[in-house]
Amino acid sequence: MQWLDEIKWDAAGLVPVIAQEKGTNDVLMFAWMNREALALTAERGQAVYFSRSRNKLWHKGEESGHFQQVHEIRMNCDADVLLLSVTQPGHEPGIACHTGRHSCFFSRLENGRWTPVDPVLKDPGSIYK
Amino acid sequence: MQWLDEIKWDAAGLVPVIAQEKGTNDVLMFAWMNREALALTAERGQAVYFSRSRNKLWHKGEESGHFQQVHEIRMNCDADVLLLSVTQPGHEPGIACHTGRHSCFFSRLENGRWTPVDPVLKDPGSIYK
Repeated sequence: MQWLDEIKWDAAGLVPVIAQEKGTNDVLMFAWMNREALALTAERGQAVYFSRSRNKLWHKGEESGHFQQVHEIRMNCDADVLLLSVTQPGHEPGIACHTGRHSCFFSRLENGRWTPVDPVLKDPGSIYK
Repeated sequence: MQWLDEIKWDAAGLVPVIAQEKGTNDVLMFAWMNREALALTAERGQAVYFSRSRNKLWHKGEESGHFQQVHEIRMNCDADVLLLSVTQPGHEPGIACHTGRHSCFFSRLENGRWTPVDPVLKDPGSIYK
């Protein structure tokens, strides 16, 4: 498919992906996709990433049952980064981070220290069965 | 510095960086930083990236004079991605993309095609002197 060929995949065949929450515009997480993951994401309207640590496709929500809905897929000017507009179901507000927080970006640099500034909304142990 | 050591720099000594506009929460751009770039960013309160294509530090705005103000630096749960809260001065709304657009993420996947959906706010030729 032509639109997949237009992406400048990196040496490992991956592209960085930013998932941004529809409505709030909060950046929830950052992950990677390979060609197959992106094709599946576009087809299903649910985020399918590529886990570099597990070296396989990662259908976000496959353990919790809370699949990430994808409303829109955008590409940057250099065709080497993607931006998704998503909804993270299962909790209000959505929980995208494996630590049970809304966003993975919960640590802020304050006076030379990384300080967690966002609350844990739900015990991660109760999310992953 | 301890907080710099806590980041999981990749094999090339870089970390991906998302720049998000303060106020609107729009994702303006994506770039990379090495250790020196991040240290300078924190010190100056202005974004200093590392250009992989030019293989050197890139003080965003060095050509246009519109330095990118950094209000906040966040890190994700895996300590391998940064999120900046920024203001892009010089135009209202801010122009972060070298194409003269507000954001680098101006192409949307529509019916199997990447379609530019955001306007060019200013002729790029008039931005870079």
